Amino acid sequence: MIAAGSSVEPFWVLYGIHVNDHVFEVLETLRIGNLSKSDIVNVADVGDPYAKDPIRHSALKPANMKPFNAEISPALLCESFITPNELFYVRNHLPVPEIDPHSYELELEVEGIDRTAVFSLDDLKKFPKATITATLMCAGNRRAEMKKVKTVKGLDWGPCAIGNATWSGVRLRDLLKQVGVTEDEEILKHVHFEGLDLDVTATQYAASIPIWKAVDRRGDVILAYEMNGVPIPPDHGYPIRVVVPGVAGARNVKWLGKIVVSEKESTSHWQQNDYKGFSPSIDYDNVDFSKAPSIQELPVISAICKPLEGEVVKVENGYINLKGYAWSGGGQQIIRVDLTLDEGKTWHIASLDAQDTALPPQHWAWTLWSAKLPVAPEFKEVEIWCKAVDSCYNTQPERFENIWNFRGVLSNAYHRVKIKLNQ
Amino acid sequence: MIAAGSSVEPFWVLYGIHVNDHVFEVLETLRIGNLSKSDIVNVADVGDPYAKDPIRHSALKPANMKPFNAEISPALLCESFITPNELFYVRNHLPVPEIDPHSYELELEVEGIDRTAVFSLDDLKKFPKATITATLMCAGNRRAEMKKVKTVKGLDWGPCAIGNATWSGVRLRDLLKQVGVTEDEEILKHVHFEGLDLDVTATQYAASIPIWKAVDRRGDVILAYEMNGVPIPPDHGYPIRVVVPGVAGARNVKWLGKIVVSEKESTSHWQQNDYKGFSPSIDYDNVDFSKAPSIQELPVISAICKPLEGEVVKVENGYINLKGYAWSGGGQQIIRVDLTLDEGKTWHIASLDAQDTALPPQHWAWTLWSAKLPVAPEFKEVEIWCKAVDSCYNTQPERFENIWNFRGVLSNAYHRVKIKLNQ
Repeated sequence: MIAAGSSVEPFWVLYGIHVNDHVFEVLETLRIGNLSKSDIVNVADVGDPYAKDPIRHSALKPANMKPFNAEISPALLCESFITPNELFYVRNHLPVPEIDPHSYELELEVEGIDRTAVFSLDDLKKFPKATITATLMCAGNRRAEMKKVKTVKGLDWGPCAIGNATWSGVRLRDLLKQVGVTEDEEILKHVHFEGLDLDVTATQYAASIPIWKAVDRRGDVILAYEMNGVPIPPDHGYPIRVVVPGVAGARNVKWLGKIVVSEKESTSHWQQNDYKGFSPSIDYDNVDFSKAPSIQELPVISAICKPLEGEVVKVENGYINLKGYAWSGGGQQIIRVDLTLDEGKTWHIASLDAQDTALPPQHWAWTLWSAKLPVAPEFKEVEIWCKAVDSCYNTQPERFENIWNFRGVLSNAYHRVKIKLNQ
Repeated sequence: MIAAGSSVEPFWVLYGIHVNDHVFEVLETLRIGNLSKSDIVNVADVGDPYAKDPIRHSALKPANMKPFNAEISPALLCESFITPNELFYVRNHLPVPEIDPHSYELELEVEGIDRTAVFSLDDLKKFPKATITATLMCAGNRRAEMKKVKTVKGLDWGPCAIGNATWSGVRLRDLLKQVGVTEDEEILKHVHFEGLDLDVTATQYAASIPIWKAVDRRGDVILAYEMNGVPIPPDHGYPIRVVVPGVAGARNVKWLGKIVVSEKESTSHWQQNDYKGFSPSIDYDNVDFSKAPSIQELPVISAICKPLEGEVVKVENGYINLKGYAWSGGGQQIIRVDLTLDEGKTWHIASLDAQDTALPPQHWAWTLWSAKLPVAPEFKEVEIWCKAVDSCYNTQPERFENIWNFRGVLSNAYHRVKIKLNQ
């Protein structure tokens, strides 16, 4: 649609993810003819819009190069409660914009009311500095597992499109107060965030959240200028990214350029026609995106990071060692992680090794867990299942079959890892 | 323990639920001897502490008589979005106290600070009147299904220990403001509620909630004096019951006599050693109640109310009709109810017929749903599965095996109903 009526080349270079055999096959069925050589007009070389993307750490394994999307290995991920910036998963939708911090401006607009304000980076830093530790996760994390049930569209994420960081910046509610939008005045219903990353039609990446999350004292939405104590790196939204804790990564807009308080949700593709969940009976052919709410708070999830699927694990005195993470959206805390090696006949309780001290419903960080589980000496291989329970006592669904959705989001069934035993 | 060292008779009459063969069998193993007739002392007749309990509607089917615990039939339950007072499930822990509204007093105390206040019913009614529509559910709702996996302790609830009503009264936060406890002053961490119902040691039924829920503007905790527009009936807490929306019924203390703002949780049996969730590997023999948080917000749940298990259902032009409810705690809204007749191979989406207009995270009411599903002409019987998805995109676990817990609470696996088809 973006390319309709004009040259398709800028589209190809921007959305490199679509330059693949499957798309070419689909297009082949739509071929209406071939241009004669004399009719071909030279298209201006649009160059590579990703040429100026930052250099990334070699431990980041790309799920896609242009736009850049990458995660680290599970073993590395569960090594530290705070994920180092250079190892934090990257989920970009467009090229990383180059932003001069000196000329950077953040616009704030309230629809229908003349209350527009503009803030420089220095202006923003004059507000009280707020700090939270929050896990961000892509709504497509662990999609690769759901894909095994039936194909889904989307990046082939393993279990590491998630990371935990300490974010510092300005409380969004403090900024909104300046233009008169407070908890007591929730007339307009949504807050939009527009990035400074542009597509070929010069449209920004954008998303929105409900107003309550933005103005509530327990919402903890932060316009972050620091990630783990240093300025936010270019891949994570330099100089300002919104951190909407407990909420899908897609609403945590990077390279923030504009905030709009509005009666309606953002009309962006990513808000309206992408990050939503559907029943297993819905596919591209029969989907009506207006029938599902945009994903905001994410459900409870967990994963085993050590050992990995297919790994040969040394049994030590009858035991194997496991490590992993668990997390829940909406400010809920993980209260328990259950593990089984015999398809649920016996459940073991993991030890919760690292947790933030914040209480629900403002507990934004993940939990790292570990366990030492007994295996019978005659076993040559074993399948480990993992499930978490959060402070609302919500738990994970068992299998992907019944939560399958064509976009491969909300992929939070039990994590199952089959390993070989060396004993 | 309550009866230790003194006569056991008052215990027997109060906790009628324990007067059963199973308990007698256990006690038989502990018999240390028989009293000779000359040693028997006449015990004062304690009478029946339940003699003054109210007369109940005949549609309420008791799970236990003393204390009274009862639910209506599923077909009746899903008939109305607002559950009529006389049909609302009753879960009493002790006899219904007789309270004179003219002499009624509610005490409010802040631990460690001399800020005690006392309110008459008239005093309470002088505060602004707040109204919410909220579903209350016993944490043991649908326990009977979990019990089929392996026995659990607790009342044999079907799927109807739930009801939806409109509650009016005083906002707890307004009352707390009077003694200086506000959102800005959350020094103490919990709010206790003590009932006026007494056990044999003259101890009240009691429970507590975290302070944030009590003082938060989105908490919507109400000291209700009206249920569906009339004074709260005796079985539901006359003259005042706490309505803690989104939170387990056990924290919605009836016949409220005292509120205490405290550093610690309530030490009551029901807070510390009862309404908590555990892994399937935990039983009475190895439980450590201090290892689990008390149940507050409840997880997402749903049930099929029509048809019932074993029912012979008339197929009309190839279709059968279904009705039921779905609900989620924590102020989340039901966004979808999925149904399958072929063990998940095909999922159908129910129509959501009745919902409150309140937005998450203040959506406290349940959703009534219906569906008309096609059945193949050759089928003689079919098993219906039902699952709900809430606005955090949390969904239900598939089976009871993996969420089994020895108290039989949080029984929210897919509802499965096997029916016979008449076609």
